[in-house]
Amino acid sequence: MPKLDLDTIPQTNRTGYPPPFDAPVQGRWYRRLAPPGGLTDFGVSHVVLQPGAWSAQRHWHEGEDEFLVMIAGEAVLVDDDGEHVLRPGDCAAFPKGERNGHHLQNRTERDCVFVVVGGGENRGGDYPDIDMRFTADDRYVHKDGSAY
Amino acid sequence: MPKLDLDTIPQTNRTGYPPPFDAPVQGRWYRRLAPPGGLTDFGVSHVVLQPGAWSAQRHWHEGEDEFLVMIAGEAVLVDDDGEHVLRPGDCAAFPKGERNGHHLQNRTERDCVFVVVGGGENRGGDYPDIDMRFTADDRYVHKDGSAY
Repeated sequence: MPKLDLDTIPQTNRTGYPPPFDAPVQGRWYRRLAPPGGLTDFGVSHVVLQPGAWSAQRHWHEGEDEFLVMIAGEAVLVDDDGEHVLRPGDCAAFPKGERNGHHLQNRTERDCVFVVVGGGENRGGDYPDIDMRFTADDRYVHKDGSAY
Repeated sequence: MPKLDLDTIPQTNRTGYPPPFDAPVQGRWYRRLAPPGGLTDFGVSHVVLQPGAWSAQRHWHEGEDEFLVMIAGEAVLVDDDGEHVLRPGDCAAFPKGERNGHHLQNRTERDCVFVVVGGGENRGGDYPDIDMRFTADDRYVHKDGSAY
């Protein structure tokens, strides 16, 4: 059925980030919606950020466009341009290859919810604030390419 | 800037549907978000349905996945499985090639708002309720292929 029953779709806070970079995303609970929806042209994540949680370390993608729409609650989008409050209905676009590291922070006392879509092809990317980058074969490494 | 200023993005209710099929979408006001957002891996539309408006004639795509998330207000998703109310936060997925015609109807007295993402490649599709289909080169034709 096209309408998704979110409650039946597994939710996880799993992350591959090495410590200490995993700490800020412990309160990020997400569901992958494309597989249960039967979609293959792009990925979709439904994300709940608990108070204090981040969506990710501030990052950008070499080969994947990202689009985000806020559903409930409030978060702060942090990028090279500064800080921007996102409220329900607000949208943000992150074109691949644009080296503007971005993430969301939930600075409120209640959960916030957003949906994020990703397309294109993973060709790696970077985390401008920390000694980490991600590779085209889905590994987190130091800036110099050495393993964690 | 990643955060989109929706008010600055042109909104239209344009449709290529021939009469009388254009009538139900006159109250569908949409913005294309991918071009101003710099995205090319998928398309994104921000849609406001006025009371009584439909999102489209009931249709399916041969080559394009669709994903929809409700932002504000309420609409009824009509597909081969029946009718399903969509409220803010509800999501629906329409895999390419699945011949389940679908659309949204705003049966309420106030606007509703949703975001819809499309990926893949236009290879045409069909409108199961009416004598119309759409072609891979973006034309609306009769079921027999003749022009309107």
